[in-house]
Amino acid sequence: MERRLQISIIGGASCDEPTAAKAEEVGFLLAQAGAVLVCGGRTGVMESACRGAEKAGGTCVGILMGYDDAEANPHVDIRIPTGLGVARNAIVVASGRAVIAIDGYYGTLSEIALALKIGRPVVTLGSWLLPPPPGGKQTADPLHHAHSPREAVEMALRLARKSPEVA
Amino acid sequence: MERRLQISIIGGASCDEPTAAKAEEVGFLLAQAGAVLVCGGRTGVMESACRGAEKAGGTCVGILMGYDDAEANPHVDIRIPTGLGVARNAIVVASGRAVIAIDGYYGTLSEIALALKIGRPVVTLGSWLLPPPPGGKQTADPLHHAHSPREAVEMALRLARKSPEVA
Amino acid sequence: MERRLQISIIGGASCDEPTAAKAEEVGFLLAQAGAVLVCGGRTGVMESACRGAEKAGGTCVGILMGYDDAEANPHVDIRIPTGLGVARNAIVVASGRAVIAIDGYYGTLSEIALALKIGRPVVTLGSWLLPPPPGGKQTADPLHHAHSPREAVEMALRLARKSPEVA
Amino acid sequence: MERRLQISIIGGASCDEPTAAKAEEVGFLLAQAGAVLVCGGRTGVMESACRGAEKAGGTCVGILMGYDDAEANPHVDIRIPTGLGVARNAIVVASGRAVIAIDGYYGTLSEIALALKIGRPVVTLGSWLLPPPPGGKQTADPLHHAHSPREAVEMALRLARKSPEVA
Repeated sequence: MERRLQISIIGGASCDEPTAAKAEEVGFLLAQAGAVLVCGGRTGVMESACRGAEKAGGTCVGILMGYDDAEANPHVDIRIPTGLGVARNAIVVASGRAVIAIDGYYGTLSEIALALKIGRPVVTLGSWLLPPPPGGKQTADPLHHAHSPREAVEMALRLARKSPEVA
Repeated sequence: MERRLQISIIGGASCDEPTAAKAEEVGFLLAQAGAVLVCGGRTGVMESACRGAEKAGGTCVGILMGYDDAEANPHVDIRIPTGLGVARNAIVVASGRAVIAIDGYYGTLSEIALALKIGRPVVTLGSWLLPPPPGGKQTADPLHHAHSPREAVEMALRLARKSPEVA
Repeated sequence: MERRLQISIIGGASCDEPTAAKAEEVGFLLAQAGAVLVCGGRTGVMESACRGAEKAGGTCVGILMGYDDAEANPHVDIRIPTGLGVARNAIVVASGRAVIAIDGYYGTLSEIALALKIGRPVVTLGSWLLPPPPGGKQTADPLHHAHSPREAVEMALRLARKSPEVA
Repeated sequence: MERRLQISIIGGASCDEPTAAKAEEVGFLLAQAGAVLVCGGRTGVMESACRGAEKAGGTCVGILMGYDDAEANPHVDIRIPTGLGVARNAIVVASGRAVIAIDGYYGTLSEIALALKIGRPVVTLGSWLLPPPPGGKQTADPLHHAHSPREAVEMALRLARKSPEVA
């Protein structure tokens, strides 16, 4: 069996309309390219991305915070009710071979940091910028900055294909 | 979108040949009925059930213990590398609207108990029997005992459809 | 620094009076022997054991299900609000070098099974009995049965001292 | 029983000597003030902070990534082997009524973000600075910046005493 690439989308549970449109396009293009979309399964950026993926006939996995399937937005196909609260953020990013961050707030920032910690490449589309780490420990920006949904998807797919099987 | 039912299969990471055959038939029948199979994604009962589901064109989700996708058996479509160790057992059972237990050992026993704790119905096919709880607190057996793969799948689907959306 | 042994106590969030008295005596004797008591931090067996430990001047750690410190019973010194729901059961048993099970229900059964899965010795005092695993895979009872609080504490301390540092 | 305040210390598993000295002083002052120190239990900033707390006769709790007690540095009193990998970061910050961040890298950044997400006040001492969230969603800096170990401890204790019991 040839497995489909899994790409994680992270972003806020609420967002403005232009951000929602970008997230929907990202989801659509990912699904069109044959990738499985993994996210936190909720509203906002997550729901818009799932809506886009559904329009392209794709598969969406929602890694939920509670035990309640109904927490998932209506475009999620596979619902994983973890019951772990915010600790589930680590699973959201671990489940993608690459991560696309769109807008977001502290939850999204935690996911970006967890992804970098466990070695998942992170593409940002209008999301957090990272200052240099404290103590001058590093200078190269670890994030891949995209300027359009299409560029974000292309970057993520390219990085995911290069990404090792093992975290 | 009409969502497919998710059914969890639990059982040992190693098993004998007759058990593997039963697990494969359970996976095949579940997929044939349109259900998504969720399991721990590893070898033994899990791998056999996934092989059966794949033969019927179904979808298998593997909730893995580590961060390494390669931990998944080759029949898993959607890989969720949790990094949680045995704590992921709670997620395996929470992710099914009903649970089918086949054979197994202490990990499987923990999953049966966690499923009962959070209110997921459990069908057993040659798996653990439960003695009465200590202190004589209850008399009715909480498990649903099936005697064939077909009966296990029918029981699980019936229980899953009656099971509330919310845990 | 010489570290104090950590012993986990598991049991139901509600219990009858004779069970509460046994749990309190177990907690008292453990603390008197210098052990740190780890539990789920809630009511019932957990609260009684913590009360006993407090009377002997001991230390109690509560591994809580939610994020709310107030979930802990008033005798818990160190509160670990995990937010993990029932997945925290794995941490409760992993945090003791040995486990004492008193009475309980499905949550307790899951903890007994998880302890055996990760190799923690389990002493029972009026708790679950285990039938043989399915398929006749084993005959020796993996549990250590005590008949009094004093015997439970002596067994747990002896097993904990023999238990390897590494799980 | 009057409970001692729990304060979480976060920071890198390796650090330079001046940072280690600062972390040790923070641990010492926290313990002197009667607080319990919670951290990830490992090397670097964590070990230095625990060493300081031990010198002042304090109590250190280590929330470990694996199942192996031996992962803890030698100054940890209470060892919680979670087996959760980086998902344990959420528990580290949830277990303090306030958090002090010293230096660090992506793991520390994830902990800062998780703390803000669940509402724990964060004091920084030479750790990450946060840019404004994407989309101009907020302007006030959510972090409390200290310029010395003494100021960090005073800030954390003051914030912890004002912090609600419930997350």
